Amino acid sequence: MQVTILGGGGFLGRKLAARFAADGAIGGKPITGLTLFDLNQPAPLDAPFPVRCLAGDVADTATLKAAIPPGTAIVIHLAAVVSAAAEADYDLGIRVNITGTQALIDACRALPAPPRVVFTSSVASFDGGQDAMVPDEGRQLPTNSYGAQKAIGELLLADATRRGFLDVVSIRLPTVMVRPGRPNRAASSFVSAVVREPLLGLPAQFPVPEDFRVWVCSPRRAVDWLAHAAGMDTAPLGRDRGINPPGISATIGEMLDALAAVAGPEARALAKRVPDAEVEAIVAGWPAAFAATRAPGLGFVRSESLEDLVRAFIADDLDATRRDRGMA
Amino acid sequence: MQVTILGGGGFLGRKLAARFAADGAIGGKPITGLTLFDLNQPAPLDAPFPVRCLAGDVADTATLKAAIPPGTAIVIHLAAVVSAAAEADYDLGIRVNITGTQALIDACRALPAPPRVVFTSSVASFDGGQDAMVPDEGRQLPTNSYGAQKAIGELLLADATRRGFLDVVSIRLPTVMVRPGRPNRAASSFVSAVVREPLLGLPAQFPVPEDFRVWVCSPRRAVDWLAHAAGMDTAPLGRDRGINPPGISATIGEMLDALAAVAGPEARALAKRVPDAEVEAIVAGWPAAFAATRAPGLGFVRSESLEDLVRAFIADDLDATRRDRGMA
Ligand SMILES: NC(=O)c1ccc[n+]([C@@H]2O[C@H](COP(=O)([O-])OP(=O)(O)OC[C@H]3O[C@@H](n4cnc5c(N)ncnc54)[C@H](O)[C@@H]3O)[C@@H](O)[C@H]2O)c1
Ligand SMILES: NC(=O)c1ccc[n+]([C@@H]2O[C@H](COP(=O)([O-])OP(=O)(O)OC[C@H]3O[C@@H](n4cnc5c(N)ncnc54)[C@H](O)[C@@H]3O)[C@@H](O)[C@H]2O)c1
Repeated sequence: MQVTILGGGGFLGRKLAARFAADGAIGGKPITGLTLFDLNQPAPLDAPFPVRCLAGDVADTATLKAAIPPGTAIVIHLAAVVSAAAEADYDLGIRVNITGTQALIDACRALPAPPRVVFTSSVASFDGGQDAMVPDEGRQLPTNSYGAQKAIGELLLADATRRGFLDVVSIRLPTVMVRPGRPNRAASSFVSAVVREPLLGLPAQFPVPEDFRVWVCSPRRAVDWLAHAAGMDTAPLGRDRGINPPGISATIGEMLDALAAVAGPEARALAKRVPDAEVEAIVAGWPAAFAATRAPGLGFVRSESLEDLVRAFIADDLDATRRDRGMA
Repeated sequence: MQVTILGGGGFLGRKLAARFAADGAIGGKPITGLTLFDLNQPAPLDAPFPVRCLAGDVADTATLKAAIPPGTAIVIHLAAVVSAAAEADYDLGIRVNITGTQALIDACRALPAPPRVVFTSSVASFDGGQDAMVPDEGRQLPTNSYGAQKAIGELLLADATRRGFLDVVSIRLPTVMVRPGRPNRAASSFVSAVVREPLLGLPAQFPVPEDFRVWVCSPRRAVDWLAHAAGMDTAPLGRDRGINPPGISATIGEMLDALAAVAGPEARALAKRVPDAEVEAIVAGWPAAFAATRAPGLGFVRSESLEDLVRAFIADDLDATRRDRGMA
């Protein structure tokens, strides 16, 4: 079984590829080859099957077809222009997040059999803000271009599924924390920074009040959900291919408390509020909590505690982040 | 004030143009010029202001810009590939219904001031079928490509509105009946045919049982709603630019009863059920009723009775339909 990860050089793409390499199989079926596709050629990966690393633009149909050869049974579509970047450059967001998804559909139609597609949609495709508790059948009324483009991607892929071009599972990921490395162009970048930077001994800034609530999950859970979506039976989903996975609704203060419990009050003291109207305007619209009642019954595992989430970052990513930032 | 109607040669486009010509103004502001744009050059129109009739493809950005010159204050976007056609030709539906809407957004961005855009979305963007009573905040989980493309158009235009490129009102039109002329490629074509054909003395077929319920409105009301949306204050809409207008939930049997009340039992006897699995599969998903509680408060007038709707067709369109079909 051939597998392709689009955006395979990114944060979740690398982690998912490592998971596939460790498992050697998806849903009990052995992986015979993996293609990692990203704007810049992804680094090689040790795996019990051949790994191809390709550079290319997901919005370019011809290049994309090379990344999704005949025999591809699973495509994980992570390639995206993220929230603050899509807000800053409308045309770039449209091209990558919409035209790119249309190109993916065209590539899947050209295959002899419809592949499973796992799409990462986002909490940002919903509105409601701090008071929201989004039900599983909640409507998507996005407050930013990134969220609109993710909702559009879901509609395109659900219709392509109905037509038999492919078989999608769209996971509306919470804000994944703790993200290793450096701050990025996601408006939610500060959510990871308030834990990561203090663990590196560095100061961190957050633009919202301490009681600001965010819907989050760990990278471990995000990878669990993506791997599960890649292998699951989709018949129980029916036409509704959007999954609100069981994340954690937590305030910045609760995250800092978990940081303090694991790394001491000195770590907590490194994080300070510095208002930023632009970022606040984007994240204020995102719902702070989801009911997420359907996903556990479909086999999507529940989130761990905030303290475990901080410990997992230390175990999995702290050293690599130090090296990456020239601190080791 | 310059006004453009895209799809201005179609059923609703012609009727709306005639309404603008009769009113001479929209929302109290005089119309200084009207552009009718369609695949085939629309026929000339008598009006108290200059009327340009242009042929072109809405998905072609350069052509579209010519149809939306600087000074355009209102664009009515009716150009579309309708339900059965979008189901039969996926690429055509994507190109006209999505790429066309993206081209419209680009043309609006190029204007010195953001124009009002009135977009005709559809009941087909919802699911739920016969048992549904869709609330105003109901989510769109379309059961066909046309409906998915309409929902995507709404998302694109709402985001473009938020960004200040334009100012959209999206009206999810019910099935408009009685449509004059000939049967068309909309899956709902039979809904008009069961009234129109008997009034012409011709037999009509419907693919669903007599107790099959449809959400409908008259062309008069559809034109009222489009004209109102063109001139209304959009501030009360907030971010939610989708309007479920107050249509009528009626069974085929009730339509035939209205036909009999107006034109006698002989007319009713001309309509017969002939099952058609393909059409039934499309229309079975469309919701049969909407709560439509928000629209009347926003100034969208309520629908008339079914009998008045039949009488309006006789008054407005029966003679023209006879001529059009070489029967007069
Ligand atoms: N991390 C989160 O908190 C989070 C939350 C919700 C949704 N998501 C979604 O999950 C997916 C993965 O997230 P991530 O955190 O790994 O993001 P990331 O930015 O680390 O990875 C995305 C990858 O896509 C690549 N990419 C961008 N444009 C491309 C193009 N035109 N062609 C090919 N590749 C391109 C980037 O180079 C990058 O490597 C994204 O779709 C993101 O929108 C992430
Ligand atoms: N009539 C209904 O029952 C109904 C119900 C719901 C929604 N709508 C929507 O309302 C709008 C108008 O409906 P209508 O009944 O007048 O349809 P129509 O088919 O009579 O008119 C649509 C017009 O769009 C034109 N068109 C198609 N492709 C084009 C392209 N590429 N470039 C330029 N023009 C193009 C067609 O030539 C046609 O004249 C459509 O968007 C339709 O989807 C109609």
